Amino acid sequence: MNSEKVQIFDTTLRDGEQVPGCKLDTEQKVLIAGRLDELGVDVIEAGFPISSPGDFRSVQEIGKVVKNATVCGLTRAVKKDIEVAAEALKSAKHPRIHTGIGTSESHIKYKFNATKEEIIERAVAAVTYAKSFVEDVEFYAEDAGRTDNEFLARVCEAVIKAGATVLNIPDTTGYCLPEEYGNKMKYLKENVTGIHKAILSCHCHNDLGMATANSIAGVMNGARQIECTINGIGERAGNTSLEEVVMIMNQHPYLNLQTDINTKLLYDTSQLVSESMGMPVQPNKAIVGSNAFAHSSGIHQDGVIKNRETYEIIDPEAVGVNTSSIILTARSGRAALAYRAKLVGYELTKLQLDAVYQKFLQVADKKKEVNNEDIHMIVEQSNIQVQASA
Amino acid sequence: MNSEKVQIFDTTLRDGEQVPGCKLDTEQKVLIAGRLDELGVDVIEAGFPISSPGDFRSVQEIGKVVKNATVCGLTRAVKKDIEVAAEALKSAKHPRIHTGIGTSESHIKYKFNATKEEIIERAVAAVTYAKSFVEDVEFYAEDAGRTDNEFLARVCEAVIKAGATVLNIPDTTGYCLPEEYGNKMKYLKENVTGIHKAILSCHCHNDLGMATANSIAGVMNGARQIECTINGIGERAGNTSLEEVVMIMNQHPYLNLQTDINTKLLYDTSQLVSESMGMPVQPNKAIVGSNAFAHSSGIHQDGVIKNRETYEIIDPEAVGVNTSSIILTARSGRAALAYRAKLVGYELTKLQLDAVYQKFLQVADKKKEVNNEDIHMIVEQSNIQVQASA
Repeated sequence: MNSEKVQIFDTTLRDGEQVPGCKLDTEQKVLIAGRLDELGVDVIEAGFPISSPGDFRSVQEIGKVVKNATVCGLTRAVKKDIEVAAEALKSAKHPRIHTGIGTSESHIKYKFNATKEEIIERAVAAVTYAKSFVEDVEFYAEDAGRTDNEFLARVCEAVIKAGATVLNIPDTTGYCLPEEYGNKMKYLKENVTGIHKAILSCHCHNDLGMATANSIAGVMNGARQIECTINGIGERAGNTSLEEVVMIMNQHPYLNLQTDINTKLLYDTSQLVSESMGMPVQPNKAIVGSNAFAHSSGIHQDGVIKNRETYEIIDPEAVGVNTSSIILTARSGRAALAYRAKLVGYELTKLQLDAVYQKFLQVADKKKEVNNEDIHMIVEQSNIQVQASA
Repeated sequence: MNSEKVQIFDTTLRDGEQVPGCKLDTEQKVLIAGRLDELGVDVIEAGFPISSPGDFRSVQEIGKVVKNATVCGLTRAVKKDIEVAAEALKSAKHPRIHTGIGTSESHIKYKFNATKEEIIERAVAAVTYAKSFVEDVEFYAEDAGRTDNEFLARVCEAVIKAGATVLNIPDTTGYCLPEEYGNKMKYLKENVTGIHKAILSCHCHNDLGMATANSIAGVMNGARQIECTINGIGERAGNTSLEEVVMIMNQHPYLNLQTDINTKLLYDTSQLVSESMGMPVQPNKAIVGSNAFAHSSGIHQDGVIKNRETYEIIDPEAVGVNTSSIILTARSGRAALAYRAKLVGYELTKLQLDAVYQKFLQVADKKKEVNNEDIHMIVEQSNIQVQASA
């Protein structure tokens, strides 16, 4: 069975950039957009053109440089927003307008003070108007995660009739559990007339730490686009991490889902975004964190030295990281010490290793990490005759 | 229906501390253990006593100060390890020995060079021996995530017969998808004779970003303990985040699962661990990150100002954070500007707001974040007659 393609919709420059204190200027955005294009994302959400003159200009400039990806601009279900987005997207080879409105009880009541029928009317009007400018129109049903499925299906049906090519089902507050989010996609797939004419898209937030799992549950139940950001950045607890969903599909062939991402560029892209935004990647970030492939416990190090696959599923090189590391700490065992000692030039016999290991533990209990210099010192102080390794 | 209790097994001080470069000394560990006890965790894994003299001492000292929680020490399925752990745990009111062995093909073949029968024998011998020291013995089937379910069930059955009170089913490499991990728990619940005598425990790693979702899938399928760390710290991409799983159960009452955690202490505990380890919490960390409750986009801010629940599910105070923030950036709308302007003393009419907002956007496009001082400057330069708010 051939695997099906899942489109990667990168929103690092729009939803991702909504991180307090991490504004990017147009030049930085253009550079990142170029890199995302190389990485192989299918869609780049470049900004929210009406929100500020700077954002308008960024969308315009990104449209000029992106060669392969679709370039997308966000709007509310408001005429002026759509006109401004269409104007900003004129430079793009493949433009997409992303418009939508809140559909949950909470949004309808508190945000719009409207009725359900009025919401559908405004949704259809927005999609119809966007269609008068571009062929490719994505509709978002904001707070879909807390929207009753039956009403959500009615909204979807109406906007598909109006010409929407993609239906974005956001879990805006990051509340859904994977089973729940997956079932929502399944429900829409089975109950929306004309659903074959549009692509269902996952847009998840990480407020409860489940954006990645929810997105995967979405594509396991019929969605074919995931909206995500590099390093999972974004407002509050952030968005779905691009690198995580891509590697999950890549590492679980039985899902029969694939993307066009060149995974070898993941690490560099992560670094570029982190540096441009001045937002460090936490060391234990999955896939792209500095510790993602670092083993420090004795049990694990021993296993990795004997056979990489004992503890590592992903070959670090597959995501552009040069090698996995064996870090020496008080939790490291003899195997790791022997391994690292050999790297710096000492071939230890079993008896020698025993002596050196006792000294090593004393040092390691005091220091956070034992480095190469420490190893030389430890070996010398252990008072043994060592043979330099080849 | 009364909700069932899920035990929280905190391994911040053992698996969590396996972060390269983040070693804690005994004093720091004792302080954190005391805080975890107040937080209401059921079990504190205090260390791996045989691994180093420092770790031995830490387990011993923690046993002395912890009042309510069970104190647990890790061992391999090795006699000497178990003896040393039992010795270290003598000071504890409620001691638990955590012993185990690898059960996946990869571990059996490459790590132990053994047969399946030999692995079962060693597992049973370890549990039996541990039982001669303490009543409460937890068994881990290392790499259970990649262990064939039928063999895993045989191992579980054998160690329950030998007296294991808890069965830890670790997804050691962080490879499982939630559905898969949940099904594994379900399989064990349904196929292991005597399973009612032991508690199934989730121990997940975050290599693909799914530790939290996997743990929740585990308890939805019969597990009643989750092994986790504060801030999700740990080797490689880290362990399951305590704060995430606790708040997921807390926020989804229909799961009928609850813990004894005092959620109001979550933020302070997170800060203590972060400071002690010198490991900053990334701003967009769910629940405890500095941005977890910060809204910067105009659409969201507008919603939150109208009604908190539009975009926030968790009341920040419930996890010990004082308030959610409305941060002003180029992505903010008029509602947020008016809200913040009012806080610093300006009551703006609609027309005044329009004028001030244009000026605000110019400033915001240049700055990452607009602060209170900027607001004064912007209002003054907007050349309007403003009325100070009450």
